[in-house]
Amino acid sequence: MNPKRCAACRYLRRRCPKDCVFSPYFPPNNPEKFACVHRIYGAGNVSKMLQQLPVQTRAEAVESLCFEATCRIEDPVYGCAGMISLLQTQIQKTESFLARTQAEITVAQIKHSQNQHSEFM
Amino acid sequence: MNPKRCAACRYLRRRCPKDCVFSPYFPPNNPEKFACVHRIYGAGNVSKMLQQLPVQTRAEAVESLCFEATCRIEDPVYGCAGMISLLQTQIQKTESFLARTQAEITVAQIKHSQNQHSEFM
Repeated sequence: MNPKRCAACRYLRRRCPKDCVFSPYFPPNNPEKFACVHRIYGAGNVSKMLQQLPVQTRAEAVESLCFEATCRIEDPVYGCAGMISLLQTQIQKTESFLARTQAEITVAQIKHSQNQHSEFM
Repeated sequence: MNPKRCAACRYLRRRCPKDCVFSPYFPPNNPEKFACVHRIYGAGNVSKMLQQLPVQTRAEAVESLCFEATCRIEDPVYGCAGMISLLQTQIQKTESFLARTQAEITVAQIKHSQNQHSEFM
């Protein structure tokens, strides 16, 4: 066993080539990270997606793929799309609360100016 | 050509079996839907994920998979994880605007009660 093989090559039981597309993003001390993306996308698809990207964007792409894969494993029906629905609902609630608060301010300001007006009558 | 083959079996150039796992969710008139999930997850992974789910949840699962695949094709680096970051930023902005508005109300109320107090002095 070569202890320097990346987590992906170790998982796939193959030699880790010098130009391994997985190696910079899947260190051997975190085998779970590769297992997640492999389970959802398959190693071949991940490799294809990474190879189609400029090298400087691959680390971010791996992080987002791992995030989505973890979400899909935790919630096999909705994945991280479920999280998006929840966030959108939260935004709608906060926005409607904000609108109500602003309406209350307007009402309070009108009442205040009416009071001041009646004091001078 | 059998015009009743589902979009998945048509894409994979195979006979569409009666118990096809794709057929209820990939009608032949929408080939793009299957092409998207196949490109990101691969037909085998999608089939595996669907088979692990109770039948009544599969339609929702297909919709969320298609959504995530479309996001990944449109944004190969961040996929729909990028959307989640944007939504979280939007929530933080709305919440901080709400907090500011509520603080302004409190200040206005204090000023108002101080005014009323000085009127009676």
